[in-house]
Amino acid sequence: MSALSLPISQLPATMSNTFGHIYRLTTFGESHGPAIGGVIDGVPAGFRLNPEAVQHELDRRRPGQSAIVTARRESDTVQLLSGLMDGVTTGAPIGFMIPNSDQHSGDYDNMAGVFRPSHADYTYTAKYGLRDHRGGGRSSARETACRVVGGAVARQILESMGITIHAYTSAVGPISLDTDYHDLDLSLTDSNAVRCPDTDVAASMYRLIERIKSDGDTIGGVVTCVVSGVKAGLGEPVADRLSATLASAMMSINAAKGFEIGMGFEGARHRGSEMMDPFETAPDGTVVTSANHSGGVQGGISNGADICFRVAFKPVATLLRPVDTIDCEGNRTTLKARGRHDPCVVPRAVPVVEAMAAITLLDAWLLNKTARI
Amino acid sequence: MSALSLPISQLPATMSNTFGHIYRLTTFGESHGPAIGGVIDGVPAGFRLNPEAVQHELDRRRPGQSAIVTARRESDTVQLLSGLMDGVTTGAPIGFMIPNSDQHSGDYDNMAGVFRPSHADYTYTAKYGLRDHRGGGRSSARETACRVVGGAVARQILESMGITIHAYTSAVGPISLDTDYHDLDLSLTDSNAVRCPDTDVAASMYRLIERIKSDGDTIGGVVTCVVSGVKAGLGEPVADRLSATLASAMMSINAAKGFEIGMGFEGARHRGSEMMDPFETAPDGTVVTSANHSGGVQGGISNGADICFRVAFKPVATLLRPVDTIDCEGNRTTLKARGRHDPCVVPRAVPVVEAMAAITLLDAWLLNKTARI
Amino acid sequence: MSALSLPISQLPATMSNTFGHIYRLTTFGESHGPAIGGVIDGVPAGFRLNPEAVQHELDRRRPGQSAIVTARRESDTVQLLSGLMDGVTTGAPIGFMIPNSDQHSGDYDNMAGVFRPSHADYTYTAKYGLRDHRGGGRSSARETACRVVGGAVARQILESMGITIHAYTSAVGPISLDTDYHDLDLSLTDSNAVRCPDTDVAASMYRLIERIKSDGDTIGGVVTCVVSGVKAGLGEPVADRLSATLASAMMSINAAKGFEIGMGFEGARHRGSEMMDPFETAPDGTVVTSANHSGGVQGGISNGADICFRVAFKPVATLLRPVDTIDCEGNRTTLKARGRHDPCVVPRAVPVVEAMAAITLLDAWLLNKTARI
Amino acid sequence: MSALSLPISQLPATMSNTFGHIYRLTTFGESHGPAIGGVIDGVPAGFRLNPEAVQHELDRRRPGQSAIVTARRESDTVQLLSGLMDGVTTGAPIGFMIPNSDQHSGDYDNMAGVFRPSHADYTYTAKYGLRDHRGGGRSSARETACRVVGGAVARQILESMGITIHAYTSAVGPISLDTDYHDLDLSLTDSNAVRCPDTDVAASMYRLIERIKSDGDTIGGVVTCVVSGVKAGLGEPVADRLSATLASAMMSINAAKGFEIGMGFEGARHRGSEMMDPFETAPDGTVVTSANHSGGVQGGISNGADICFRVAFKPVATLLRPVDTIDCEGNRTTLKARGRHDPCVVPRAVPVVEAMAAITLLDAWLLNKTARI
Repeated sequence: MSALSLPISQLPATMSNTFGHIYRLTTFGESHGPAIGGVIDGVPAGFRLNPEAVQHELDRRRPGQSAIVTARRESDTVQLLSGLMDGVTTGAPIGFMIPNSDQHSGDYDNMAGVFRPSHADYTYTAKYGLRDHRGGGRSSARETACRVVGGAVARQILESMGITIHAYTSAVGPISLDTDYHDLDLSLTDSNAVRCPDTDVAASMYRLIERIKSDGDTIGGVVTCVVSGVKAGLGEPVADRLSATLASAMMSINAAKGFEIGMGFEGARHRGSEMMDPFETAPDGTVVTSANHSGGVQGGISNGADICFRVAFKPVATLLRPVDTIDCEGNRTTLKARGRHDPCVVPRAVPVVEAMAAITLLDAWLLNKTARI
Repeated sequence: MSALSLPISQLPATMSNTFGHIYRLTTFGESHGPAIGGVIDGVPAGFRLNPEAVQHELDRRRPGQSAIVTARRESDTVQLLSGLMDGVTTGAPIGFMIPNSDQHSGDYDNMAGVFRPSHADYTYTAKYGLRDHRGGGRSSARETACRVVGGAVARQILESMGITIHAYTSAVGPISLDTDYHDLDLSLTDSNAVRCPDTDVAASMYRLIERIKSDGDTIGGVVTCVVSGVKAGLGEPVADRLSATLASAMMSINAAKGFEIGMGFEGARHRGSEMMDPFETAPDGTVVTSANHSGGVQGGISNGADICFRVAFKPVATLLRPVDTIDCEGNRTTLKARGRHDPCVVPRAVPVVEAMAAITLLDAWLLNKTARI
Repeated sequence: MSALSLPISQLPATMSNTFGHIYRLTTFGESHGPAIGGVIDGVPAGFRLNPEAVQHELDRRRPGQSAIVTARRESDTVQLLSGLMDGVTTGAPIGFMIPNSDQHSGDYDNMAGVFRPSHADYTYTAKYGLRDHRGGGRSSARETACRVVGGAVARQILESMGITIHAYTSAVGPISLDTDYHDLDLSLTDSNAVRCPDTDVAASMYRLIERIKSDGDTIGGVVTCVVSGVKAGLGEPVADRLSATLASAMMSINAAKGFEIGMGFEGARHRGSEMMDPFETAPDGTVVTSANHSGGVQGGISNGADICFRVAFKPVATLLRPVDTIDCEGNRTTLKARGRHDPCVVPRAVPVVEAMAAITLLDAWLLNKTARI
Repeated sequence: MSALSLPISQLPATMSNTFGHIYRLTTFGESHGPAIGGVIDGVPAGFRLNPEAVQHELDRRRPGQSAIVTARRESDTVQLLSGLMDGVTTGAPIGFMIPNSDQHSGDYDNMAGVFRPSHADYTYTAKYGLRDHRGGGRSSARETACRVVGGAVARQILESMGITIHAYTSAVGPISLDTDYHDLDLSLTDSNAVRCPDTDVAASMYRLIERIKSDGDTIGGVVTCVVSGVKAGLGEPVADRLSATLASAMMSINAAKGFEIGMGFEGARHRGSEMMDPFETAPDGTVVTSANHSGGVQGGISNGADICFRVAFKPVATLLRPVDTIDCEGNRTTLKARGRHDPCVVPRAVPVVEAMAAITLLDAWLLNKTARI
């Protein structure tokens, strides 16, 4: 930690690390400390939790799964420390820990006094007045592993109510999968390293990422998420609209730069008569809509249709080739990052998007029960 | 309020109506009650407030300003009821009230038992088990007037620190203003009814809205917002990233369906080497970036560059022509809405976007001071 | 507002004015502005509210009821502005307003530059850097009228579940009512101006307050509160124990200086074998306790027995006789307060204690429902 | 976990385990799991933390220190897992863990199906619908070890500002230390096992606890706490008065049944003229009071004088002799608890009271900075 001479406020500040109102996940840990972890509070009592399914979600996010993701090797084994008795939730908070095993802090030595462009180095330094350069400290995407644990617990509870969550890679750079999700076999998502359910498109995406990686470059992409089985009524209609809480959850993921629900930005180009979701009565008497331009949320509240949204991720900021930048004293310098980074964040972002959706929806579901007499 | 027989959960529930953590706006009121209003808590003491400037912002949002917005006539005169002594904030909460003057509840009688498609009628009914059909009740865009009051107070405080907020209409349906905002004269935004700073494009947009209105139809659009003068360091890096809180604030506005910051969805199509924001040292020693693909936020924290984001609004759901739908008993019916509605929400959304940006930024600014020793 | 030269931090700050997590009351207003009021958020939908019963609670707190309370004349008529349709709660927030009618700001002119001893004048000035001397500004007990409104709504909802709340004056200065509440007729509480259900003791208390008043002095006292009908299970067991949230609610009332539940401080003098609350099975199979030393809360959670607690109120700080103090410049001076003040706060605190109990219990009740699958 | 047949609601629920608004401690863990721990969020960046001082506070709370506390042997070694770089806080959350080493779950086997009187067994079962009988699960006082960690970090930061916190045992059963704290040498508090700074009184208390223990009984007591060096201005004046947040923090400690600040319940017996705290100007120009009946808080805000409060603890519920009770089926039974329990909770509660005071005051201090322009 060097004394900085930045012409900005360098007074220390704090950060908030808690997601949710009722079902609350608080995370801690840096990529290069002994462990990361968190506390899940507000877990309903009496639910039989499957720890293997939690680990499975972590495995999906784990680095080192294929040639197109970071080579960092982490076993990412989660230890659940509390809140369970004989495998059943007790209502007590679930504390958990994921030991860090593969810390190459040395990789970052040459970055200690330098601001990597488009990375969080400078903004953290501006905010906190000091710099944790070891792998990005708290801004490392490794933090999202804890969200996957919180999401995996939420997901199991949601699944017991018939709510399912499927995310997939729908764009890598200019390669876009535009097929309506009804015409995709979403069970194929995990069949390839890109996590795109159309295997042909997946192959093209894979080749593009390989090429980008060999260039020492990175590439952005889009994740689409579909949540089915949500009953009408979730979401608070003014400040905590379901569309707003989902947006916040998704935009809190590293590298996320855009969120849209239903027809989103494309819908803004159209007429009301084209964007209508007419109501109908299903044979079983349920109110349904014959279209879903709204993406399952109307007036901030779920309407029973599938909740569909998309998240845009910028290309990872760390390039594996020399870039011009400045050091902490403001002098020009050239940086050649080593470290181990994903050329495209999207394949590993898929389980994180699902996790944040699960946390958001379970929280909305619980909050919706809050005030019933 | 009729006894409904919907095949969904109709148990009553609650809603959350508070924005912000430290600077907190809580709103109340329906479009057809005696008044709407709210409480602004967390207002810093010792600030000389200009009440005329608050009223001015309300006037910008007020209906009946031109031929292309709703003809509802409301004087929208705000009464500040507390929190001020001799014009200076005391640190006490500012309670305020805006009397409703032009309630045509009769306009809505034919909608009492019907679910308007793509509107919040059904979702509110599903959530609360009853139906306030009088102008949409709490889901009415009239609620946003209270946000404008909360935003106008925040804006004055921000302006005293050199922070300015400019939003403008950047798209109406397919007509898009793609000019970089640096090349626009943003002071022209309020010179036309559309609130587009390019007067030629504004004229085209105006004609389109007129045509849409004469068709009894509606049209979507996009609002772009630019915030200048924010120092590096605002935003919490994990759960309350500035990109996430801005997304949440914007997506909480009626009809908002998409949010992107910086290059957003377009940036997801590109390589990291193309999206780089290189750091430089300005002549005065300040760290600046020579590009701003990030939109002023990196790692969830402001970096000192302009904060730029866009919000997509769907077309208003209420058409002034017959639409097929169902009634509360699930029977098919045809609805011909009367009421008074905007054919395009975007021109009046501009001051609401600015208000929500002001609330979010002042809250982030205050929160950032929170934990300094 | 004078420029102060206090040797303390005078930077402005904010204040928090919201009670509750789910059922949330936010209040605003000073005793000498146009109105006080608030917003009740989180009101369950579908409840038929009796507005007269709300007004009735306000009338119980109203000044000018007898010779032993402040002569300030306020009609204290509450206007409910939103959240109701045909008398039924809609789930939308209830905004309300109580116009101030009898403001004698002139009474306070001689206090403008002076710190009244043991009053909040100095601490507010230290915190906010300015001084609202008009009747104490936000620190005026008038603010509690808004709590009575929020409590009256909660109380009706609780009563519909069989939960009743009875507070009464159990001590005025050294005169203490030590009878077990089971042996009192709590319906007599409002039969006298002191609000003590033992009419003989009430008469003694009344005479004491008269004498104190004629001395230009004030006197402290204790309010006891009994809540019946609460099922076992309310309260969160670690941070938001029911004993802790009740303590916080009561200690937030002006002049409150002590809180105890069950045997409280007296219980600390005893052995565990003396303080035991043995469990028994009632004829209907319910688990009950044959004693209630715990005051209805064990491990922070209600156990089904009556919840009993006591709140100590200090004597009002404002004496109607000359007192030595200092002015804002630190010079010695003598103050002879005029204004209109209660010689004993306890009789009018009774409905405020009940209101805060109602808000706390409904919030705990709603929160307890939060996470049930 | 047995299927219970209680005539009460057994639906599962959640619990809240977070203290504080800005400086937030979230704890997890049961006394008989692998570890307890927590996350401290909102720690200001740039503070050099002394880990030994954190461990020292834990050692003060640790069981097995003397013959009058529980014989449970725990090393209580805390591991700080994140939030520090080279010993300096980074603004990131501090995750921590305390492994459990001495779990005698077998001690509790005979309690599995029984409700211990005056303990939390029944209320937890009523709330969560299941029973973690192993040492009380989450209701175990072992949870307070995590509070001591959170408090020890806060304490160091407060001490760097000149704020000191001293708690001591002021009563054990009927033996009360009534000496004004100004006349005590508070540095002697830790010189004896009772933690009473008057060594003669301490000796009497010690003998009483020994006698109580040999009877298989328990005894209550009182802890007094004095906080010095707090500047005027801390505390929010309506909902989060410093007196209310301190009350809540203290009443959240296991076995706490009463809280009073300043003259508390005794002050309620007196006249305003007797309870006056006259203002004076100190030689250095500071505003001071020549008495401190208020206990350092006026109008909910600190006034610069010492903050003094007292906390009453009931006798521990678990007796080491046979007691009559019922089992989970409601049948009468006799329980002879084994386990290892404190005959008097007060000596080990002293560091917990200090920890909760530190958390509350640092949080108030940070919140007070929140809204300064």
